Amino acid sequence: MKAIAVYEDGTEPVVIEKPRPEPEAGEALVRTLRVGVDGTDHEVIAGGHGGRPDGEDHMVLGHEAVGVVEDPNDTPFEVGDVVVPTVRRPPNGANEYFARGEPDMAPDGEYHERGIVGAHGFMAEYFTSPAEFLVEIPPELAEWGFLVEPASITEKAVEHAFASRSAFHWEPDSALVLGNGSLGLLTVAMLDADLERVYCLGRRERPDPTIDVIESLGATYVNSNDTPVPAIPDAHEPVDFVYEATGYAPHAFESIEALAPNGVAALLGVPGDWEFEIEGGRLHRELVLHNKALVGSVNSGYEHFESAVESLSGLSEAFFADLVTGVYPLSEFEAAFVDDDTTIKTAVEFAAYEER
Amino acid sequence: MKAIAVYEDGTEPVVIEKPRPEPEAGEALVRTLRVGVDGTDHEVIAGGHGGRPDGEDHMVLGHEAVGVVEDPNDTPFEVGDVVVPTVRRPPNGANEYFARGEPDMAPDGEYHERGIVGAHGFMAEYFTSPAEFLVEIPPELAEWGFLVEPASITEKAVEHAFASRSAFHWEPDSALVLGNGSLGLLTVAMLDADLERVYCLGRRERPDPTIDVIESLGATYVNSNDTPVPAIPDAHEPVDFVYEATGYAPHAFESIEALAPNGVAALLGVPGDWEFEIEGGRLHRELVLHNKALVGSVNSGYEHFESAVESLSGLSEAFFADLVTGVYPLSEFEAAFVDDDTTIKTAVEFAAYEER
Repeated sequence: MKAIAVYEDGTEPVVIEKPRPEPEAGEALVRTLRVGVDGTDHEVIAGGHGGRPDGEDHMVLGHEAVGVVEDPNDTPFEVGDVVVPTVRRPPNGANEYFARGEPDMAPDGEYHERGIVGAHGFMAEYFTSPAEFLVEIPPELAEWGFLVEPASITEKAVEHAFASRSAFHWEPDSALVLGNGSLGLLTVAMLDADLERVYCLGRRERPDPTIDVIESLGATYVNSNDTPVPAIPDAHEPVDFVYEATGYAPHAFESIEALAPNGVAALLGVPGDWEFEIEGGRLHRELVLHNKALVGSVNSGYEHFESAVESLSGLSEAFFADLVTGVYPLSEFEAAFVDDDTTIKTAVEFAAYEER
Repeated sequence: MKAIAVYEDGTEPVVIEKPRPEPEAGEALVRTLRVGVDGTDHEVIAGGHGGRPDGEDHMVLGHEAVGVVEDPNDTPFEVGDVVVPTVRRPPNGANEYFARGEPDMAPDGEYHERGIVGAHGFMAEYFTSPAEFLVEIPPELAEWGFLVEPASITEKAVEHAFASRSAFHWEPDSALVLGNGSLGLLTVAMLDADLERVYCLGRRERPDPTIDVIESLGATYVNSNDTPVPAIPDAHEPVDFVYEATGYAPHAFESIEALAPNGVAALLGVPGDWEFEIEGGRLHRELVLHNKALVGSVNSGYEHFESAVESLSGLSEAFFADLVTGVYPLSEFEAAFVDDDTTIKTAVEFAAYEER
């Protein structure tokens, strides 16, 4: 079968030929439909995550997949079920985090991530997975099923951030999403269902397709060139919830200033090392005197995938069509890795979904 | 009656004569037993909090009080009940935060704090309070009842911090208290009841009475001159919970480095303005990749006072005797405001408790 991989000494993804995997006991064989591309894939290609599978000179890319069960292999699935695989796998048998269904809470060394660290990804015509790491989704979502994984990241971050406000009465009605990448836009759409006012900050000038998406959702675009994060309370309003998806480290700390009293910021970006000055006294005081919180969040668990399916089911086809600017067949896979100002979200299509 | 106050143009507390207050409808009259002194009192004396009551040229000090009901005045209390007053009061009738029993979540302008901002404190022979702001405590705790308010601050901070970990399985067994002031030591004692290993960081050299208290509780003293916060994971262990009670702003951010994966830091210090450099990229990344959180916390609600009573009831007389280095009668009140290396916690005694 064909797969898209990056070699040890490579700087670009390439199509390679690999044997079709055989499902082991407890695993199903899945025929891949589509696999999304995101910033993490670009980091893997650039060598930023390292960690190819043991003894391999290449890593099959891709962690945002949707496929169809080809061979249930005595798992509870049936041929034709549409499934999304979760990303983390136990590196050496199970551990307590996986046993609890919370692989997202496992520390370094206690997990592999398919397509990212220590295990091949899903950008191949077929993949196998233990049944407990496959989430069944409705056939209606098959086309957009590669968005379940990124949506699950948001589900977890929101769950954890909101849990931090559970010791008191809290009714958020405004949110600020930092970052107008595909995850930011997906989050704007998801938050829009529950919150009255959603802002999304980016550094793009008009005309820009991400700004069109933000506005079509009824949210407000904030141009960071005109309105930096600390200026948002004056320019718009202090917000109850900040969702940081930029990886721009000053935002993690500036978000304290954008929050209303009793608000919380979920942090999801993964910046490199960087020292900089902050108004540390004032930020510390703000956190304390106004009961604010910062909650870091990485990855997601099985239940977050299930919640993501539910959230995506509530979004419109028009939104998906705006968000996903390109789905490319294997023969044109390079186009899915282009990231320019007209690109929002892309995927590689390995097979079209056909209802049985 | 006599009261301890600080004048508009004063820099030291003085004893003044005031009329004994008359309870209004819904208020009880309380005869004051003891009132504790803490860092906030010193800030009020230094003018750091401003906010004397409207039209007054002085502020009666004190927010950590215990007293005995002298005149229930048709409230549910009985003469002789031992009570601790909460600190926040609605500035103009009630507001939603007070209505919900969460005055600690009220933003600026929505509260006064007795003895701190906008309302006289409890350092007087008598005070009045609406019954809903009085917490009855067991007579056995009458002597140490002035510790209920500071303990309630810890109850709230711990509740909020732990709530931030409620979306997943979390079993903390180690904690680090930053600060060996009286609140830090009280917190060490309170955490010691639930956690296996407690560390307390200070900058004192041995011999020192706070170190003796820490060690008599079975906790480990960490000298910040030898082991700064970021070095604690290597020198001891990464901890599940950090409780910051120093007001030293770099600690708020360094605490991220002391935390184990999935850990949380409660921030309680209130520093002044201060700009400084941080390793912001690494700290942001740490928060995200290891699911860490920072939770600011100020003040406390009625239920936290009730929890504090329960927690204090579990602590030993020996601990209280070590912690409270001086209780001074009104005639020697100045001694209660001395803060030297032999002082841990002090109080002014207005009347001795006599069982009826």
